[in-house]
Amino acid sequence: MSPFTGSATPTPRWQHLRVDHTDSVATVTLARPDKLNALTFGAYADLRDLLTELSRERAVRALVLAGEGRGFCSGGDVDEIIGATLAMDTAQLLDFNRMTGQVVRAVRECPFPVIAAVHGIAAGAGAVLALAADFRVADPTARFTFLFTRVGLSGGDMGAAYLLPRVVGLGHATRLLMLGEPVHAPEAERIGLISELTQEGRADESARALAHRLAQGPALAYAQTKALLTAELDMPLATAIELDAATQALLMNGDDYAEFHRAFKEKRPPKWQGR
Amino acid sequence: MSPFTGSATPTPRWQHLRVDHTDSVATVTLARPDKLNALTFGAYADLRDLLTELSRERAVRALVLAGEGRGFCSGGDVDEIIGATLAMDTAQLLDFNRMTGQVVRAVRECPFPVIAAVHGIAAGAGAVLALAADFRVADPTARFTFLFTRVGLSGGDMGAAYLLPRVVGLGHATRLLMLGEPVHAPEAERIGLISELTQEGRADESARALAHRLAQGPALAYAQTKALLTAELDMPLATAIELDAATQALLMNGDDYAEFHRAFKEKRPPKWQGR
Amino acid sequence: MSPFTGSATPTPRWQHLRVDHTDSVATVTLARPDKLNALTFGAYADLRDLLTELSRERAVRALVLAGEGRGFCSGGDVDEIIGATLAMDTAQLLDFNRMTGQVVRAVRECPFPVIAAVHGIAAGAGAVLALAADFRVADPTARFTFLFTRVGLSGGDMGAAYLLPRVVGLGHATRLLMLGEPVHAPEAERIGLISELTQEGRADESARALAHRLAQGPALAYAQTKALLTAELDMPLATAIELDAATQALLMNGDDYAEFHRAFKEKRPPKWQGR
Repeated sequence: MSPFTGSATPTPRWQHLRVDHTDSVATVTLARPDKLNALTFGAYADLRDLLTELSRERAVRALVLAGEGRGFCSGGDVDEIIGATLAMDTAQLLDFNRMTGQVVRAVRECPFPVIAAVHGIAAGAGAVLALAADFRVADPTARFTFLFTRVGLSGGDMGAAYLLPRVVGLGHATRLLMLGEPVHAPEAERIGLISELTQEGRADESARALAHRLAQGPALAYAQTKALLTAELDMPLATAIELDAATQALLMNGDDYAEFHRAFKEKRPPKWQGR
Repeated sequence: MSPFTGSATPTPRWQHLRVDHTDSVATVTLARPDKLNALTFGAYADLRDLLTELSRERAVRALVLAGEGRGFCSGGDVDEIIGATLAMDTAQLLDFNRMTGQVVRAVRECPFPVIAAVHGIAAGAGAVLALAADFRVADPTARFTFLFTRVGLSGGDMGAAYLLPRVVGLGHATRLLMLGEPVHAPEAERIGLISELTQEGRADESARALAHRLAQGPALAYAQTKALLTAELDMPLATAIELDAATQALLMNGDDYAEFHRAFKEKRPPKWQGR
Repeated sequence: MSPFTGSATPTPRWQHLRVDHTDSVATVTLARPDKLNALTFGAYADLRDLLTELSRERAVRALVLAGEGRGFCSGGDVDEIIGATLAMDTAQLLDFNRMTGQVVRAVRECPFPVIAAVHGIAAGAGAVLALAADFRVADPTARFTFLFTRVGLSGGDMGAAYLLPRVVGLGHATRLLMLGEPVHAPEAERIGLISELTQEGRADESARALAHRLAQGPALAYAQTKALLTAELDMPLATAIELDAATQALLMNGDDYAEFHRAFKEKRPPKWQGR
């Protein structure tokens, strides 16, 4: 736990998400299976606030984002979101779209790896949530559909026009965001959109295994790796190299680096403390 | 048509390009088949000026760029361009190279998708024109050759050293721009340089079909998707997400988004207006 | 040779590297085969200083970086580097990490192509050295392991978190840098980490052949291509296109461009001067 927790108290119960903690792994499940886990205003807000709390508390070392039932997430709910936004004024529309973007920023900026466990549909905001994760563990039923233009909106929703070219290249990203067609697992793996392809029905299990492995590892090293990967997309080479030097110097003063060396000398596996 | 057309009149006839309009699709054909559509000073200037006019007038919703005869485009004409540039002074050389770069900027910045229909050779400036397009629809005879170093020039011509690493990654881009060797269709598809691989002889037809499909769709959504893909390559994540939020809020006030919702409720396809 | 060499004299003998010159090709061999060419403080410093000297003198037109024995380079030596850094104070740690980063900057910024010839292991700093090279010529035994987190450090070492996403995309880069697992040659080729895959045992020979081919070519064109590829990763499109225009105008005043045109007219191969 961080020593820098202030007066804000942890939320006793998340109403729009299912949140489980096992050891240092949090599992967040989108759990409206009858609606293919379509997102509601409440679910977006809960994702934003949950990630903020977990980032502040520092007890979690890895997070799995999964979907219950037949798919991962079908995106914003047509009735509860598209319908509702049609009645909003400009300030409200901007608020809503900033909130969804804040979820993506929170996924990219939280100090632990986020692993999306994808089976079946990952559409619209669901596809972007998976895209923002550090790892996409997917089974052969997974399909990613950046369908925004098909509802009359920009393909660049929640950072998708920033992230997707950096994951699959500008050519594929243009095609996927402009046309809004599904990318099925084999193509998704070929173009680099899937981190780990599992057997059918095993995405959740493999994602949890990866999360537990990461949670038992050198958590500070992982957190800094993630922070540098995120930050150095937006930084010139010389600056990135200076940041790397400062970061490694910092970690070389840390416990885990010394522990690695001791363990190496003693021919045993290191006991990581995450600091 | 845009309400913001000023006193400038449309060019009655493009002498260095063949330009056809069908519905809202413009087809620009490089039509010097006896020279493999080698570009001349006039052709570069016409491409620059045509894209400027079309961007201003807003009647076109998609543009196909194709080559007549045995290939797409063999690049700058050795006689008419390389020979002529050898007689130019420094200011003229800079003018010429700025003009070719302006064509690429115009392709990236025009408010409609550009689809390159590639068969046979796409070399030099021809390869960069295809690279700058939003879609590369190519048949199995297509080959892309960034041959600049082979004439003693930098591989970074017309933005190629900016664009190619963002499409195929820095490793492939370095190899292609340094060595100037052809990339044939199978490799081009594998590394993400081709958006859609067609049957032999079908690149033009497929490119036109894609253009007509896009022209019948939500044109403003496509235009903003393209604008964000272009702009967000040069923007940090947080800024990109703010731009996305403002763009979606804008489009959620638009006709096409409301029409999508009506059509969804009425279980019929939307009638897109492009606004 | 550059006319702008000052009072500094060339180093008569590099003690921590083997350096050979043949025609205009330098071959730098990591030559501690009993330690899988593990890097020492002296080897890092020699790499940094050698590249600085070669960049200043301008006699070298291509450089091969190879490893003697069973592999390319196993990274920083556990005894001589990890052990020693544990005894360093903060200023020394920063100095060390800046030095390793300077090697990567020198590889990216030297005015000639660098070709890594990789067989067997390329681990840790060895993997980043190969990553920073312009070309990775590798045989089927090659494996790249960004193992930093496995010693408790950040995966973003020596610019890896900047370079790797730009070579293989953010998804693969996250996986490789976070988990620190080996990428074997087939996967490395598939994701774009290998420039040229050779037959087993032929990486050095193929790398030298490529270096000699580049050394006989238009060296200034290659140098500028490399400089633009490096610089334009950190530059907006419009700026990149302006830089390209100025660079091509410059090279169009150069000898090699005129020579290309003469040779083309005379139907003979050009004799490149590299200027």
